[in-house]
Amino acid sequence: MDFLPESLTRLIEELQILPGIGPKSAQRLAFHLLKSGDSRIESLSSSVADIKKGVIECGTCFSLTTNSPCKICGDTSRDQSILCIVESTLDLIAIEKTGEFKGRYHVLQGTISPLDGVGPDDLKIGELFARLTEENSPVNEIILALNPDLEGDTTALFLRQKLALLRPMTVSRIARGIPSGGNLEYTDDATLIRALQGRQLMN
Amino acid sequence: MDFLPESLTRLIEELQILPGIGPKSAQRLAFHLLKSGDSRIESLSSSVADIKKGVIECGTCFSLTTNSPCKICGDTSRDQSILCIVESTLDLIAIEKTGEFKGRYHVLQGTISPLDGVGPDDLKIGELFARLTEENSPVNEIILALNPDLEGDTTALFLRQKLALLRPMTVSRIARGIPSGGNLEYTDDATLIRALQGRQLMN
Repeated sequence: MDFLPESLTRLIEELQILPGIGPKSAQRLAFHLLKSGDSRIESLSSSVADIKKGVIECGTCFSLTTNSPCKICGDTSRDQSILCIVESTLDLIAIEKTGEFKGRYHVLQGTISPLDGVGPDDLKIGELFARLTEENSPVNEIILALNPDLEGDTTALFLRQKLALLRPMTVSRIARGIPSGGNLEYTDDATLIRALQGRQLMN
Repeated sequence: MDFLPESLTRLIEELQILPGIGPKSAQRLAFHLLKSGDSRIESLSSSVADIKKGVIECGTCFSLTTNSPCKICGDTSRDQSILCIVESTLDLIAIEKTGEFKGRYHVLQGTISPLDGVGPDDLKIGELFARLTEENSPVNEIILALNPDLEGDTTALFLRQKLALLRPMTVSRIARGIPSGGNLEYTDDATLIRALQGRQLMN
């Protein structure tokens, strides 16, 4: 594509490295921006440049925030007895958007993945247990909201075993099964087996 | 999402306005950038800011370029007798990448779309005919490489009628049919009808 202006090819190359953006999408985005107004371009450019400004980790739950403790940890109206363990702030956002969960969170900042060289010490697991062993810790229920994949399974198993040694607590993991609106016929075997195993009594 | 840092929500909102990027992709991209190195962030930000720098239209074919005439129009080894009419520089790139076409291009910069208020005068159609009516114009074949949709059809029909009044020339339109690797069973009716109508003799 040596016939294209250099500023265009450069932006296309930059965009292509981003996750989920292939060569065609990168082209489309670059041409879209080329046609956009200068203020729009300036605004996007400065948003990218400023992305890290004022972003810190919450000292309690380790989600990304502007002030520590974050709004969720500082909200005294939320149930302090129940803690939801997630892999990332993105997963926290997904759960928070449902409006279904009224407790607090703990963000592990990853999952145990021996293949990638990520062990328990690389995650916020020590910090989780520090929270749980604090004097007067109000937590008596833990929900493991980890992805249903190998790393999520490994991490969930590891945490369940460590939590069992701590004190009696309700520990659960979010359900696996066929997604709402899904189709049994097109569901893969692993999901179907989990859906059968996790069948719920209808009373 | 008032619990997220402002710089993050701002970038997520900016990204969401881009074509083909939904709320989830915008989140994922923003979090990816947050974890990226400062030089990467600075580089992307400046690429966006500089996107319009040095980009002009080729005075001959109206594709986007750094110098006019563009590299393709200035390449004397290319066949000057055949002209490929495309809607946008993006379509030019797609054809150029195949390496199949060795002629020159003319970029209309849009298609006739009465619903959007785009008429022939809003496109580079006048410029196309100026090119074709130049003294000693070498063009004797036109390929209409327009999208197979309502606007593309309208524009192709309009051009074919205007070209017929000009001088005898071969005018063709790129084929419609089932894409390579496609599946007849899952092909929509309109495509299948076109594929049948456009059937090619096997000699």
